[in-house]
Amino acid sequence: MSSIGPPTGMRDWLPQDALLRQHLMETIGRMYRLYGYLPIDTPVMEDLSVLLGKGGGENEKLLFKVLKRGEKLAQAKEQNKDIADYGLRFDLTVPLARFVATHQGKLPKVFRRYHIAPVWRADRPQQGRYREFYQCDIDVVGGATPDYEVEVITATERVLKELNLGKYRFRLSDKRLLPLLLSGLGASVDQLGSLTIALDKLDKHPDQVFEELRGLLAHDSDLAGKVHSFVMFAYDTWKHKTGRHERIEYFTKYWDMVTPSARRAELDAVLANLQSIMNSVLKVNPGSCIVFDPILVRGMDYYTGPVYEAVVEGYPSSILGGGRYDGLIGRFAGKPIPAVGCSIGFERILSILQERKSGQAAATVSRVLLVNDGQSRDLLQQRAEQLRNAGICIETYLEQDDPGKQFKYAEAACIKWAIESFDESTSTVTVRHLSERRDLTMSLPAFLTLLAGKAPA
Amino acid sequence: MSSIGPPTGMRDWLPQDALLRQHLMETIGRMYRLYGYLPIDTPVMEDLSVLLGKGGGENEKLLFKVLKRGEKLAQAKEQNKDIADYGLRFDLTVPLARFVATHQGKLPKVFRRYHIAPVWRADRPQQGRYREFYQCDIDVVGGATPDYEVEVITATERVLKELNLGKYRFRLSDKRLLPLLLSGLGASVDQLGSLTIALDKLDKHPDQVFEELRGLLAHDSDLAGKVHSFVMFAYDTWKHKTGRHERIEYFTKYWDMVTPSARRAELDAVLANLQSIMNSVLKVNPGSCIVFDPILVRGMDYYTGPVYEAVVEGYPSSILGGGRYDGLIGRFAGKPIPAVGCSIGFERILSILQERKSGQAAATVSRVLLVNDGQSRDLLQQRAEQLRNAGICIETYLEQDDPGKQFKYAEAACIKWAIESFDESTSTVTVRHLSERRDLTMSLPAFLTLLAGKAPA
Repeated sequence: MSSIGPPTGMRDWLPQDALLRQHLMETIGRMYRLYGYLPIDTPVMEDLSVLLGKGGGENEKLLFKVLKRGEKLAQAKEQNKDIADYGLRFDLTVPLARFVATHQGKLPKVFRRYHIAPVWRADRPQQGRYREFYQCDIDVVGGATPDYEVEVITATERVLKELNLGKYRFRLSDKRLLPLLLSGLGASVDQLGSLTIALDKLDKHPDQVFEELRGLLAHDSDLAGKVHSFVMFAYDTWKHKTGRHERIEYFTKYWDMVTPSARRAELDAVLANLQSIMNSVLKVNPGSCIVFDPILVRGMDYYTGPVYEAVVEGYPSSILGGGRYDGLIGRFAGKPIPAVGCSIGFERILSILQERKSGQAAATVSRVLLVNDGQSRDLLQQRAEQLRNAGICIETYLEQDDPGKQFKYAEAACIKWAIESFDESTSTVTVRHLSERRDLTMSLPAFLTLLAGKAPA
Repeated sequence: MSSIGPPTGMRDWLPQDALLRQHLMETIGRMYRLYGYLPIDTPVMEDLSVLLGKGGGENEKLLFKVLKRGEKLAQAKEQNKDIADYGLRFDLTVPLARFVATHQGKLPKVFRRYHIAPVWRADRPQQGRYREFYQCDIDVVGGATPDYEVEVITATERVLKELNLGKYRFRLSDKRLLPLLLSGLGASVDQLGSLTIALDKLDKHPDQVFEELRGLLAHDSDLAGKVHSFVMFAYDTWKHKTGRHERIEYFTKYWDMVTPSARRAELDAVLANLQSIMNSVLKVNPGSCIVFDPILVRGMDYYTGPVYEAVVEGYPSSILGGGRYDGLIGRFAGKPIPAVGCSIGFERILSILQERKSGQAAATVSRVLLVNDGQSRDLLQQRAEQLRNAGICIETYLEQDDPGKQFKYAEAACIKWAIESFDESTSTVTVRHLSERRDLTMSLPAFLTLLAGKAPA
């Protein structure tokens, strides 16, 4: 049993990582609460009928199904029926749709919520991909106007700023834009899917994209030329990353190629909506990093309007994405319900913070070791209580070991300071900086200041 | 689909309850971190072999099992093997034992951790009992001396104080005490189980207990008399609830009945250990509510020494319990590992807080509605940002409705204040107290003070 571990593709959270996860959850939650968003939660499992919807498809393969129990299991086996009744949720969107249907009467007509929780997918485990992982979804259910896009984007940029992730670009487009443009340039309906799938890789594998486009459009040199020119132009703009050129009107020559006029009018409406969102976001938050990016393809089929994602400089994949999806949330409620939201790449941000010391530090509890001087243990624990009353996280060394061994223990446990003695009458402590092997005597308030990361007063 | 809901016996968490749950988690975590305890987490599922251990028994019936997937499922069906490979954890103790085995080299030799997380049991659902519910375990793994009992009890009483649950009694006994006493009075080994099971109900159904005792001991009037006298004496002591008499020496006449002398010596060692723990707890924390209670029976088989539980005045069941269990944690590590801990009745405390307005209030986010005055929406969202920068949680009303409808919406959403206008140049707000239908104009700092629950400066 020496190699016993968690299930394949799942992780234990040791204290440092558990603290960092908590810190990230709290930071995200605090920011969205500033915007009136409140937390909800749902059970980890849902009825299979809820999870599989119509047909099931891809999701069914990834599903962890829960076996029926007792009588029902015996019956199902006997009658050759389904032996599973529940499944673990594979995202937080299906549970939200079910939640909205269940609590229809009780929710405000504009329902702002966030949900940070694990989901499960029986994917083939690989580097950085887990079968149990956290998602973090923020959504406004019932908000139909683009003002809600403005709010969600503004709130999300505040989260990015608060997390101190560094320079990022918040890319905005519309799910309808590429199909309108491409068919407006002459692509047929059945080409749209493969073209957008190809374009999705533009920022990671540009050469491959251009080759695929040539293959896909070999039969129509006029269309191929226009698409190539457009994609090349967008790619160059993107590569410059100045933000200066990433404006909708910069692409006017391509919009002008769109025919017939009805389609052009549709495209113009989509563009006007995007322009209005960008203008508002920049007015509300002049520090916004929003940019227009016509090649943005959000994979999810369920988006129906504006889509966006954020990319942090130095990291290839987006760290969050979202958009408007007016067709999904009403699925179980039996009526159309507009919705716009954002899914934060919780695990990706977590791994960025783990890489960076700043993130680690933010999540570290400043535990202090209270050295066991071999005197009365009651006195030792009394002193520990007094120090805790002053707000210090005290780990009391309760074993009988010499100080050297105690210091070693503390260093291994990532503890920075040890209190060697505490004189309550004068409120004086003698402390040791463990890695520097330096002893200091000072007042308790001075030590508190030191712990808080400031120079002693 | 109109009656769609979560799985039987499981709950959705609407915002108010989700906030309260978060508040409780944070409070508990903060208190234990003061004592050097750190959070961990494990996957919701474990290998079936881990969960079922030797034999399985009761736990197997309560287990939610996870179906194998793809190839493996097909193979298992074909070969008539087990079709499930994982199960959802039914407690946090088995995962801790597995965690300790997995990370043996990486954990400090004295490992203080807390774990607050859901567990699943396919119990018959009933009032106040769920199939998905939270547990909250605090344990010191690797601490063999009674100093750790003192620490765990002191930390836990700090949690109770911080949660403001009111008067409580922290009952202390030892798993070995009743068996030693009862056999010392003349009970046979095979009577011990049924006697302690009967005694477990003493605080809830005393009459029933005395009747059961009469039945169990009908054959031996001497033993029956002694046991009856002891239990009656303990029950009277307990009913007085003064704490004054709940001392070990108060029961001396019963200890003196114990024979033979070897057993008496064993009992005395157990009592001396308890006395030492009580003395230390009271020295370290003079406000402690610890009392000796010889009838305390903690159900779990795995306890090996001191056990304790806390009962809040006005609530029949204990709200937390724990003790020393030196035989369990080493199960997967293949060596004996001492451990002492406490399991906080998270759901029970949550329901007490839900009943009390104070608990609710502590968890409420002071959201403020920013009224949509029909002017520019960009300006509205700009103002919202400025107010958020001042630290106020602002829900902006983005629909086009008259103020009356907006106020109604806010009241229904448990929002107390609405900001009707904000003049940035003078930093002045006009606000409405919604339930009192009262409008006030004041400086933004004065409003912040008001929100913080203090009288305006």
